[in-house]
Amino acid sequence: MTSSGPEERGASITPPISGATRLYAVLGDPVAQVRAPALLNALFGRLGRDAVLVPVLATPDDFTDVVGGLKRVGNLDGMLFTVPHKAAAARLADRRSTVVTVAGGANAMRREPDGSWSAENFDGAGFVRGLAAAGHVLRGRRVTVSGAGGAGSSIAVALLDAGVGGLSLYDPDAERLAALLKRLDEHWPGRSVGTEAPELELADIVVNATPLGMRPDDPLPFDPARVPPGRVVADIVMKPRLTRLLKRSASLGLTVHPGIHMLDAQLDSYRHFFRLG
Amino acid sequence: MTSSGPEERGASITPPISGATRLYAVLGDPVAQVRAPALLNALFGRLGRDAVLVPVLATPDDFTDVVGGLKRVGNLDGMLFTVPHKAAAARLADRRSTVVTVAGGANAMRREPDGSWSAENFDGAGFVRGLAAAGHVLRGRRVTVSGAGGAGSSIAVALLDAGVGGLSLYDPDAERLAALLKRLDEHWPGRSVGTEAPELELADIVVNATPLGMRPDDPLPFDPARVPPGRVVADIVMKPRLTRLLKRSASLGLTVHPGIHMLDAQLDSYRHFFRLG
Repeated sequence: MTSSGPEERGASITPPISGATRLYAVLGDPVAQVRAPALLNALFGRLGRDAVLVPVLATPDDFTDVVGGLKRVGNLDGMLFTVPHKAAAARLADRRSTVVTVAGGANAMRREPDGSWSAENFDGAGFVRGLAAAGHVLRGRRVTVSGAGGAGSSIAVALLDAGVGGLSLYDPDAERLAALLKRLDEHWPGRSVGTEAPELELADIVVNATPLGMRPDDPLPFDPARVPPGRVVADIVMKPRLTRLLKRSASLGLTVHPGIHMLDAQLDSYRHFFRLG
Repeated sequence: MTSSGPEERGASITPPISGATRLYAVLGDPVAQVRAPALLNALFGRLGRDAVLVPVLATPDDFTDVVGGLKRVGNLDGMLFTVPHKAAAARLADRRSTVVTVAGGANAMRREPDGSWSAENFDGAGFVRGLAAAGHVLRGRRVTVSGAGGAGSSIAVALLDAGVGGLSLYDPDAERLAALLKRLDEHWPGRSVGTEAPELELADIVVNATPLGMRPDDPLPFDPARVPPGRVVADIVMKPRLTRLLKRSASLGLTVHPGIHMLDAQLDSYRHFFRLG
C-alpha cells in the first residue's frame, strides 16, 4: 500500500462484528498509540473480510500468559507485536523466519493450518520499501542506523538484504550492539561496523531507529547539524509525523523521511503474511 | 432495553477501533451464532463508549487457559459466556453472586477496580424481565421449567425471586435435577418440586429451558397439546425466533413468548453490570 493518502491512513472504518468474525490482535505496552487497528480494519473492509483487529494491552510480566491464551482462541488467526514485546514474541513462536532469528524479534505471528505459530518481522522490510517508494536508492549506499533494538535490528537486516554498500551501527548498549553485529556477520560477513557514536559524516542516509522523539521532551537521538548537506535523515518514530529530529533536519536543508512510510509499506506484507487475499 | 425493534436488535453498528479502545469478549463453543456482538456494539455506539465486544471461540479443553490469558489483558473489562462455558466460568471467578452460586453458572464476568473478577448470571433475570415486559404476571403463579442446565437453573432462581407460587422442575438428568432442587431449597424452602416428566396440566406458564429447538430436526421438549388453553408457553431458544414448539403452541391457541425477549431484557443488566453509564 504505497498510494494511500492521509485520509485513508487515518480512517476509522471498522467492519461489522458478528459471532463469526475472525480475530487479530496487536499487543503492546502501552498500546493506546498503535495505528494498526485503523490501518488493518480499513484493509479488512476494503478486502471484504469478516475480520477485526483489536488492541491488547499486556505487561511484560503477563505477556507469556496472554499470548498463551490468545493462541488457543479458535477464531484468532494472527497477532502483531510492538514495544516492548518483539523479542519475547520471537521466543514464543514455533517457527521463526531468518529475519526474526537475526533481528532477535518478531512483529507478527500467524496460525498455520497445522495449528502451529510462525513469526515474521516486517519492520525492516517495511522501512526499506518505504525508502524505495520515496525514491531513495539503497544499493551501494552507506547507511548509519542509530539503535540496535528490535526495530533497528530488523532494519539492519533489511538494509543488508537490499545491498547497501556499508552499514554503520550505533547503540549505547555495547553488549546489545556487539550481539547484533555478530548475528549480521554470520549472514553478511564484513558489511557492518559498530561505532561508539552515530557515524554522521560519511553516511548517505542516517536512520533514527530509537524511540527518541515519541515524547516532546526527548533529547535528539543525534545532532543533524553534523550530517552533510544533501544527505537523508530518516526516522522510525511515527507520532508525531514530523519529529523534532526531522524538523531540525529539514531546517538544515537535509532530506527527511518520516516513520509513517515504514507502516504504510508494511500493510502489503501483512496482507500477504496473513493470507488475506 | 424493552423498546428496541428488530432493526435495532439486528444492527451491525460497530464503533471505530483504535489503540485506546476497551475490550469485551463473548466466549462460546460454537460462537458463530452469538448475537451479543451486534447487541453490545450497538449499545456501545449509542452510549458513545470507545469499546468493542468480540467473539472468542474456546473449546472446553482450552477454556481455562483462554480465560486466564484474557484476565491479564489490561484493556479487557468484561467477558460474557455462553454454552458450554457457564459452569466453568463461575468456577474461574474470584467472586460469585448468589444467583451464580445457586444456578451453578455465570454468563458475565467483570474486572473490579482491585483487579479481581466478579461473576454474575443474567439469564434468569432477563427472562423474568422479558415476561414482565410482555405483560405476564408471575407473583403467585405456578410455573414449570423444563431443563435444569445453566439457563434453566438461572431462570428457576429468578422465578422464585420474583415470587412465583410454585415451581415445577424437570430434567432428564435426575442427579442434576436433585442437585438444583437442593440448592434452591436452601434459599426458598419447599417452593420447588422435581417431576419425572414436565408438569404441563397445572402450570400457568410452561418454559422450555433446554436447547431443543435450535436445530430444525430437534424433537419438541414437551407436547404443547397437553397444556390447557389460555396458558403461556415460553422458550429460551432465540434462533429461530419462533421455534417449532412455539409455532405448534400458537396453532393450539396458547400464548407464546419467544426467547429473544430474554436477551433484549438482559441488555440493561449488562449496561449496569459493566458500569457503561
